[in-house]
Formats: sequence, C-alpha cells, structure tokens
Amino acid sequence: MFKRILIANRGEIAVRIIRACNDLNIESVAIYSRADRESMHVKMATHTYPISEDPIKGYLDPDLIIQAAKEMEAEAIHPGYGFLSENAFFAKKVKEAGIVWIGPDSEVIAKMGDKNAARNLMIANGIPVVPGTEPLNTLSMYEIQKIARKIGYPVILKASSGGGGRGIRVVQEEKDLESSFEACKREALTFFKNEDVFMEKYIQNPRHIEFQILSDNYGNVIHLLERDCSIQRRHQKLIEIAPCPTMSMDLRRRMGSVAVAAAKATKYTNAGTVEFLVDDYNNFYFMEMNTRIQVEHGVTEEITGYDLIGRQIRIANGEILDITQSDVYAQGFAIEARINAEDVQNDFVPNPGKITSYYPALGPFVRVDSYVYKDFTIPPFYDSMIAKLIVRATSYDLAVNKLQRALNEFKIRGVKTTIPFLINICHDKDFRRGNFDTSYLEQKAQDLMPQESRDDSDLVAAIAVALTNALEE
Amino acid sequence: MFKRILIANRGEIAVRIIRACNDLNIESVAIYSRADRESMHVKMATHTYPISEDPIKGYLDPDLIIQAAKEMEAEAIHPGYGFLSENAFFAKKVKEAGIVWIGPDSEVIAKMGDKNAARNLMIANGIPVVPGTEPLNTLSMYEIQKIARKIGYPVILKASSGGGGRGIRVVQEEKDLESSFEACKREALTFFKNEDVFMEKYIQNPRHIEFQILSDNYGNVIHLLERDCSIQRRHQKLIEIAPCPTMSMDLRRRMGSVAVAAAKATKYTNAGTVEFLVDDYNNFYFMEMNTRIQVEHGVTEEITGYDLIGRQIRIANGEILDITQSDVYAQGFAIEARINAEDVQNDFVPNPGKITSYYPALGPFVRVDSYVYKDFTIPPFYDSMIAKLIVRATSYDLAVNKLQRALNEFKIRGVKTTIPFLINICHDKDFRRGNFDTSYLEQKAQDLMPQESRDDSDLVAAIAVALTNALEE
Repeated sequence: MFKRILIANRGEIAVRIIRACNDLNIESVAIYSRADRESMHVKMATHTYPISEDPIKGYLDPDLIIQAAKEMEAEAIHPGYGFLSENAFFAKKVKEAGIVWIGPDSEVIAKMGDKNAARNLMIANGIPVVPGTEPLNTLSMYEIQKIARKIGYPVILKASSGGGGRGIRVVQEEKDLESSFEACKREALTFFKNEDVFMEKYIQNPRHIEFQILSDNYGNVIHLLERDCSIQRRHQKLIEIAPCPTMSMDLRRRMGSVAVAAAKATKYTNAGTVEFLVDDYNNFYFMEMNTRIQVEHGVTEEITGYDLIGRQIRIANGEILDITQSDVYAQGFAIEARINAEDVQNDFVPNPGKITSYYPALGPFVRVDSYVYKDFTIPPFYDSMIAKLIVRATSYDLAVNKLQRALNEFKIRGVKTTIPFLINICHDKDFRRGNFDTSYLEQKAQDLMPQESRDDSDLVAAIAVALTNALEE
Repeated sequence: MFKRILIANRGEIAVRIIRACNDLNIESVAIYSRADRESMHVKMATHTYPISEDPIKGYLDPDLIIQAAKEMEAEAIHPGYGFLSENAFFAKKVKEAGIVWIGPDSEVIAKMGDKNAARNLMIANGIPVVPGTEPLNTLSMYEIQKIARKIGYPVILKASSGGGGRGIRVVQEEKDLESSFEACKREALTFFKNEDVFMEKYIQNPRHIEFQILSDNYGNVIHLLERDCSIQRRHQKLIEIAPCPTMSMDLRRRMGSVAVAAAKATKYTNAGTVEFLVDDYNNFYFMEMNTRIQVEHGVTEEITGYDLIGRQIRIANGEILDITQSDVYAQGFAIEARINAEDVQNDFVPNPGKITSYYPALGPFVRVDSYVYKDFTIPPFYDSMIAKLIVRATSYDLAVNKLQRALNEFKIRGVKTTIPFLINICHDKDFRRGNFDTSYLEQKAQDLMPQESRDDSDLVAAIAVALTNALEE
C-alpha cells in the first residue's frame, strides 16, 4: 500500500481524504494557500506543504503540485473534486512524473471532458442520449422544421460554442422555431464569435439521477446504485438522496446496466459518476460522466456501507475489486444537505467570515463532513460550502424527519448559512412526498425563504434556539 | 402517536431518546436533578421538570416521576437504562397511573429479574442454561462428587444468597472439591447468614454474546443479530461489536432461534436483550434477559439500519412490527467504544470535572452519542460514561482502523478519559484478530495501560496532539 499520499485539494474533501488515509494507515500531505493556513485539512494532515501565497493559484498549478509531491515523497496524488480533478493534462503529468493518479486514466478524463466526444461514444455503444443534431446552419428552415418535428417539441437550440446560459432558446411550437433560430444565431455570433447552432430535444423538468461507478484496473465494473440530485439551484446541487425515493426496481435495474455499460465503453477505472436526465415517462438520457469523486458521494456510502474514498485509494494501488454487483444493496435511505455560508435572503451570496459558535449535529444516523470549527474564519476565496450533513433512516420520510431534526441541532453562529432554508425544505409537502424535479427550487424558492424573525410557534426551531442560547451561557 | 413522552433518565441515553422523539415529532419532557441542570438533556428537551435537589433520589423515585408525568401531561414514560428501567414495581405503577410504559410488561420484568425464576422458565422451554444444581447441603460428599463428575470439571460453587463475588469457589479437580465446598459454606454463613451452596458448570473464559430482540404487542418477535460484549473490565463492558467477528453463520442461526424462543417463552414485548455465555466449543448458555434498551444498542442500529429507540416508542404506541426476520441483515461491522471520564492509570477511578475542550470525532462512518460539551462540568454523582463512539466498516479489521482513527480525532481536555486506553486496545494484535473472551482485559490491562508521557514516535498520536494544539490556538 502507498506510504504517503498528497491531497491536491482543500476544504471538507481534503479532510475526508485525510480520514481515509488514516483509516488505511497512510500518511497524508496537505497543500495549502496562505488563506487556508488555519483550515482543518492543514491541522489534520500528517505533513503540510505551503503551495502558494495566492489563495487559488497553488491549487490550480500542476507543476507546483507535482513538485510538492516529489519533495514530500508522496507516491500518489488524490485530486478530490473541483480544482484540477478533471484536468487530463494534470493527470497525465502526474503519471509521467512517476506518481500514481488516484482517478481514471488521463485519456478517459479527456474523452469524457469533451461533451461531444462523450456523446458520440455513448451513441456508438447504444447508450441513450438526448436526441439531437450536428450544427444546423447549412440547412434550410424547411429541413430544420422537419428535424424538429422528428425530434418532437419542445426542442432546445444551443450555440455550439455556448456556455453560461447564453445562446440558448427553448422552442415549444413550430411557429416559434424560425425566429428563435435566428435569435440564437445572432446571440451565438455576438457572444462566441461562432454562429453555429444545433438542436436537442428539450427534456422538461427532468429528474437528475446519477449512478455511482466503481471500476478496478482489470475490467471489473459495478455500480453502487443511484442518487437523486434534482434539488438544485442554478445547477448547484443543494440536497442529494440515495437511492431515488420514487424509482421503480425495474428502472433502477435498466439504468444501472446502462451506467455500467457506459463505464465499460470508456474503459473507465476508479470511482466515477454517470449522470442521467429522467423525464416524466421514465425515459432516461445520458448527460455526462464525472471522472472524479462527487461532493455527494457520502449518501452512497451511507446506504451501501462502502467507503468510496478508501476504495479509490485501494483501486489506484492495484487492488482487485472484491465487490460484485449482487453484493450491493441499499440499507434504507440517506439524504445529504449542503450547509453553505450564504445569505439566502440576499440571492444566496456567499457570506464568509468568522464562525463564533459551532455545534455540529451528532447522534444516531447523523454524519457531518466539514473543515470548519469554532473561531475559524471562512476565507472569501473559495466555494461557500462549509459542511455536509448526511442522515439515514429505513424509509425516505423518516430520513426527512431525521434531516430536519439534525438541521435544527446544527448550530453555526457568526455567518449566515443555508440551514434555515434547508429546514423549510424539510417542511415542504412536495419534498416529503418525493414530488420534485430539477425545477423544484426555481418554483419554490420564494415560499421556502426563511423569515427574518423566526416563528416562535415552530416548536423545533424554538428548541433549537433555546439549545444554542443554553450552550452559549 | 404520543404527543409527549417523559424521559425518566439523564445523560447520553436521555439525549438519545430526545432525538428519537424529535425524529417522530413527539415532544419530550426531561426530568433533572439540581446537579444535572446544565446537562445536555435538559437543554435539548421540549419541556423540563426539576425532579429533586438530591442528585440521585429523584431519578429513583417512582411517585415523583409519575407525578411529573401527570403534571406535564406526558402520555408515556421511557425509562432508558439503569435507574428504574428494570424496576417492575415502577413499571406497574406507571401503567396503573394510565401512562404508557415504553418497555415490556411489569410481570415480564419481574420474572426476568428473578434469576432463578428466569432460569427455570428457560429450562422448561428447552433453552440451554449453564448446567447446575439446587442447594447441595443435604447431600453426602460422595453424592456431591458424583454430581460434579456428571456436570464435568471445572465446576463453580456458589452461595445461594451470594453476591459481590463473595461465597464463590472454582473447583478444577475432584481432589479440591470437599475443601472448597466446606470453605464456601463457611463464607456463605459468615457473609449471608445462609450456608446453602449450589454448583454450576464453570465456563472458562467464555465470550459474552447477546442478541437484540424486538417484539410487538401481537406476538411478532424477531432478533436483530448479536453483539459481542466480551471486552469487559470487572463486568463493565468497555467495547462492543456487532456482529460477533468470529461467529459462524450456523451458530448465529442457532443462537438467534434460541433468543427468539426465549423472548416468546416470556411473552416479551418491546426491545430486550438475551445474554449468553459461549464457550470454546461453541456451546452456548442462557445467562439473563435484560428487559430494557442496552447502552450498546447503537452498534446494532448501525449494522441493521433500524432505529431501536424509535421502534421502542412505536411498539409501545401499538404499532405492528413491520420487520420480518428475513429483512434483518448486517451491513458490515460496527464497534462501540465507551469513553468514560476515568483515571485509567489510577485503577479507572472516576475523574469528573470541567471539560475545557471538546472536539467529538466526525466524518464518514463515525457516530457520537453524548451529553457533554465544552465548559460543561461532569457531576461526580453518576456513571462515568460521557460519550459513546461508534464506527462501522465493511470488515471487522477496517472497523478497528476506523475506531482507532476516530479515537485519535476525539479530543477531550480537562478530565482524564479512557481514550488513550481504548487506542491501545485498537493496536493490540489479539483485539484486531478477534481473539478475545471475557478474560481479555483482566489479562491485558497492564500491557494496554497508556504511558504517562506519550510516545512521539506514534505518528497518529502525534498528529492528534498537534491537531488539538492547533485547534486551541
């Protein structure tokens, strides 16, 4: 087994990886920016390495990180999520430096990072993708209309070089197709200097369902069931659930097989995630494959009992996967809520600052992954997520109860957090019934907004306030 | 469902029950002594009721507690463990006062509390008990020798009215039988004014294995697998493991059936535990039935996913058990370590006092059940257990690794605790191999004793110290 692993990350995922190293008796090397010198990952690691004065640059510099790994004699690098975790160039350089990359091969990362290449590979392997076209610009409107009819309305027009929500038009009916196409082309030219526009079937209010994959270096591939990540705000997941509370066994079986086929088609190794959109008629479409560990991996760990970070390390070390598909089953339901330092009432803007009191929820069926502590000052330079609260129970509705209870127990003062908003989600009937899709938060955000003055008739909230006051005294 | 439950207890189990109430949207009533006014259970409960100035008397006074329940309009009482939890008189009075007792019927408690009656009931139902006799005093030595040979050496002689380790003699060979018998009789007369002495087979260095039972009010009885509680110091459990790491599937099946039969024989309802001794040849013997929730119930919760306190409440509320035996399986292994405020090097004497810093272990597969917090002063009047640390993993050896990691993360300052001793147990080869029985701690305690000055070459310990220092700065 590796003697020492460098963690090319920060925050809660760096802490999570250090814990996995400790569990396997592996030494950890934390890299850190000046802004992060008081972060928990620096305090917990076996060894530390100051990577840069700049808050960001060090975490994004392949050469600096590889140099650190060499100096610190780390045999492997775990990239976590974000930063360089899906950077094929970095993965390649790590390998060339004689260091083990804890993740899939750089070629796989590159292939899955190119959304068109990934899509074409899936089509070639019979994996369902959202029906769509190549750029339409050379075709006549008559031909484009024909294609739209074949795909079926609503359709979505997208700038080929687009991004950030620009150059996109949803078209509900044929009468709007021409004007939308022209508008989209103009926007594409303005923003991306490329007027190429293509068409896809528009999946209205789908569920976001993703399957966790584990593959070893010898072709053994399994999935560890799915996560429902439909509760998103502007494509940022806020709550994740495993397994999906409304999925039939039959659909799970079919999607699971497709997820494994997708991983096999890419010759995938290590942990990964196959993301799908699922429509109201249980049609599902490959969206993308994430070639790294996900933020929300913990809910899968809770229901299956498998330690995914530990497995990543063991697979990278050449271990044969000793889990077969039939070993995998869910024990109940797990829900993760992301606790972000954000001012919910002010459009969720980040709210960094000093944490003046910190009481994580504890007790039965509650897990907290975090990197903060009392008197820690959250730096303003990074992701606003400061803790992940994960609960589990035998049924989805009991898990929602437990999440509500644990959120009420979780006390953070000094910065504003998403906790009151998350508590309101727990009270929402549609959430409790599993009646939601990716449009949920967009539709409900106003109703779920916490009131400035807390309703004291809310018993649990009142207890929670009393508890914090009492603990402070 | 109940609207309000009174908790006739304190400490971590009161907090555990409050959390179960919160999960089920039930209001909780905490009773507390003056010494406990700053305890977490008082701060967390929906309602509080000062039960006595005296630290102990209020928790042991059936009338006071029933009066509190009436005043506070609680519909049910949860007794926790210890205190009045196995007091049949109290259970009866609670019922007579029109309040629901969250536990088995008072007659069952009484029957199982009388060790002879329990033993005879088990014999009548074909449950194996340790072979033994009625008092032997009227027999000749020739006849006593014949009985001993039939039972098989070693045997143990016990004063019928004995207790506290007095009036007991283990006899290894026939040549010592007569002198031991005479000595035992003399001691019995001296200490208990009753020279009656009986004989049992002496089970040398057995394992302590107990099965968790759940029964509803309609005759549905299941077990939730076993716990190995062999790691004990003077009959106080220190570490508990579920399932037993060395038990064969066949033995588990046989013992589980017997445990269910024992519960059925007593017409048991609610949660209970059937305790067995298991010898080196996998012979097992009924020891006793605990008619309450156990301290170590959490390891069973972790591997099965079932919330035992929640189930106790739901069963007491008349719910039909919706779990069948075939629904129950273990997902990996869980280990609980009891963190006691004790001076290990000074014969484990309690070490109450003010907690000046408190960082519970957090993160994946770690659970902490506790009632203390930073700046809390542990009262000197109660049990010295201040926290239960529970971990789980897919295999027993990985669970030991996780326990070791979590113990190193768990930081308590201001009072001495069992943490360093528990860490040493994690390092012990016999513990890691599952090679232990009830004599383990007696044999190993000296080797496991922590050194006054910590060995800095112990990497993980050094990290842990650094972490605490860093967090303190």
